Amino acid sequence: MEYPSRLIEDAVNEVSKLPGIGKKTALRLVLHLLKEEATSTKNLSHSLNQMREKVKYCTICNNISDDEVCRICNGFKRDKSLLCVVEDTRDVMAIENTSQFSGIYHVLGGVISPVEGIGPDQLTIIKLLDRITAEDSIIEEVIFALSPTMEGDTTIFYITKKIEKIKVKVKVSSIARGVPIGGELEYIDEITLGRSILSRTVYNHS
Amino acid sequence: MEYPSRLIEDAVNEVSKLPGIGKKTALRLVLHLLKEEATSTKNLSHSLNQMREKVKYCTICNNISDDEVCRICNGFKRDKSLLCVVEDTRDVMAIENTSQFSGIYHVLGGVISPVEGIGPDQLTIIKLLDRITAEDSIIEEVIFALSPTMEGDTTIFYITKKIEKIKVKVKVSSIARGVPIGGELEYIDEITLGRSILSRTVYNHS
Repeated sequence: MEYPSRLIEDAVNEVSKLPGIGKKTALRLVLHLLKEEATSTKNLSHSLNQMREKVKYCTICNNISDDEVCRICNGFKRDKSLLCVVEDTRDVMAIENTSQFSGIYHVLGGVISPVEGIGPDQLTIIKLLDRITAEDSIIEEVIFALSPTMEGDTTIFYITKKIEKIKVKVKVSSIARGVPIGGELEYIDEITLGRSILSRTVYNHS
Repeated sequence: MEYPSRLIEDAVNEVSKLPGIGKKTALRLVLHLLKEEATSTKNLSHSLNQMREKVKYCTICNNISDDEVCRICNGFKRDKSLLCVVEDTRDVMAIENTSQFSGIYHVLGGVISPVEGIGPDQLTIIKLLDRITAEDSIIEEVIFALSPTMEGDTTIFYITKKIEKIKVKVKVSSIARGVPIGGELEYIDEITLGRSILSRTVYNHS
């Protein structure tokens, strides 16, 4: 594609680096910004720069935060004996949206994935184990809320083994995998249906 | 949706102002930038700002350009007797990609649309008429390449009437509207099929 201007071309190239945005969509977005007031573009790039430069991570749970310690870890009403392990911030937001969980979180920053070159060391697993073994820890249950994929399962298996090794009395569980609410039984795949007999799978260690 | 950080929320709000991007997609893009190197975000916002601030419009055809006069208007090999009228830059790019047109362009900057509050005055119609009536004009044919919509047709009708009034000998035509190449005849709607009997509709004024 030949662009009418080098400036447009540069902008399109940068925008199309974003996931799920191709050259055509990028061009549409760039030309949209060109039609809008100049302040739209300024506000957009300013907010992105601010976000990238100034965002902090909670020193306890590793979630994105405005302060040293995030609102959830600081929350008086949160049950600090229940620790939910998630992949990233979006999962925290999704679970918070359900209003069904009153515990605290631990954000791994990813899942173990040999294909993408992500090993246990790149995740906050050591920090998680430290939280569980800390002297003042009141954690009674670690709930894994990871995606039901090979990578998610590998990560659960790896961390569960680590927890077993440190010989701390803590219950380890995973969110129920089963039939989605509203799903028709006949259309659910066999693996999900097979799993759905168990609701909350407790990986209790003896 | 509650965001873990005000910075994230601001960025998501700005990104979701872009057309076709909702809050969920915006969040995905913002978190992607957060995972990438900080330079990615800097490059993105820099290129957008540069584009918005420095982009110029060709003083002849109104197309986006790096210089005062765009590459097409400046092109030695372009047939300056053929003027193609389009809605915006994307249309110029689309037609250029076909390599089927060697003439020059005129970018209207939109089409007449009472619903969106766009009247003839917001378009570059006067500039177009000036180009046609200019002393040194060698324009022999004005080809409308507008979308086959109510708005496009209204715009063609409006400009054609204006051209008739100025009593300049110039042929006025529209790109052929018909069966798209590769389309099966039985699936084409009746209006398109009806139109397809005529290939290039010449709106000759007597």
